[in-house]
Amino acid sequence: MDQQKATNIVKQATLVSRQDRERLHNCRSFTLWFTGLSASGKSTLACRVEKVLHDKGYPTYILDGDNVRHGLNKNLGFSPEDRQENIRRLAEVAKLFRDAGVINLTAFISPYRQERDFARSLSEDDDFIEVFVDCPVEVCEGRDPKGMYTKARQGIIKEFTGISAPYESPESPEIHLHTDSQDIEQCVEQIVRYLIEQKLIPR
Amino acid sequence: MDQQKATNIVKQATLVSRQDRERLHNCRSFTLWFTGLSASGKSTLACRVEKVLHDKGYPTYILDGDNVRHGLNKNLGFSPEDRQENIRRLAEVAKLFRDAGVINLTAFISPYRQERDFARSLSEDDDFIEVFVDCPVEVCEGRDPKGMYTKARQGIIKEFTGISAPYESPESPEIHLHTDSQDIEQCVEQIVRYLIEQKLIPR
Repeated sequence: MDQQKATNIVKQATLVSRQDRERLHNCRSFTLWFTGLSASGKSTLACRVEKVLHDKGYPTYILDGDNVRHGLNKNLGFSPEDRQENIRRLAEVAKLFRDAGVINLTAFISPYRQERDFARSLSEDDDFIEVFVDCPVEVCEGRDPKGMYTKARQGIIKEFTGISAPYESPESPEIHLHTDSQDIEQCVEQIVRYLIEQKLIPR
Repeated sequence: MDQQKATNIVKQATLVSRQDRERLHNCRSFTLWFTGLSASGKSTLACRVEKVLHDKGYPTYILDGDNVRHGLNKNLGFSPEDRQENIRRLAEVAKLFRDAGVINLTAFISPYRQERDFARSLSEDDDFIEVFVDCPVEVCEGRDPKGMYTKARQGIIKEFTGISAPYESPESPEIHLHTDSQDIEQCVEQIVRYLIEQKLIPR
């Protein structure tokens, strides 16, 4: 994932730093990286947490299938190579948003450990928080709000994570949620509590 | 540039909109798209304008070769296809930053009219401002701060804009600067005056 094709690039000195932006925004910037099966609750939780942080006055942004798959990554499909490039680009964009001093929340299945580790490798200190939205595939399939699992079972959607493509669970995520037994409020509270404990946002 | 490979994407309702973010940040979000030859002054001007806007209290971010070519677009070179994909991704990321309520400034040669028009096509209303950093190639070559023109003349760098690859001048940029005859202060002032006149920032 690390090849650099463009070599004629010279570093520019900028006049405004990430620290300047964080100071202006009166907050630290970080990434909440939600990972989990389809219908596990990633997007719902990201939206709810964004709302909480926005209401506290912090600059926030969600990167999800809606704005990334339809734009930046529209030329990628769901093959293993394309999935890898999808997550690589996402990780790089999340880094840009951190550098811009914006709290960002990514809501992608991101099924492979190696790719999530790559995303983490772009981060500094404690500004990358992996949120494992854990839910048994049977429960996700039972929810199936978009009819994706049905289509996957019918073979209409190929390489569907949890059905016909693997999901590698995080081994030591910063936050581990169980959306089959916790309700949304409890999950949001657990995330916000973590951010406070880590001094990423004030009490 | 418009093919959509990932079709299993369903729109999510978010709880925080661009307008909410703009209200929080107390400003409109827009893109200042700097285009011009290497050494015309794009990055210098973007940095100076960012500093002015940051000092006024607005969230800002620069997208340039430094942070984009070394990250998101590191797997792209300088062939026409790669240049096109480079600018396509840049345009999509600029759109994400607008959506995030952040004023963003892009500093890429972006030599092809079609690509800049594509970037513009992703914008809404008046939130895309093309800044033509106009400077004769002879003057740029005389400056050559990074030794790029020398290498291009020696054939060490292939497909170098203005020497061995074309630059298509903007036909009706919102802002047209002449960095061979205007100094930096005058250029910065011209840009800020435009933003005020267009009510993108207050007086």
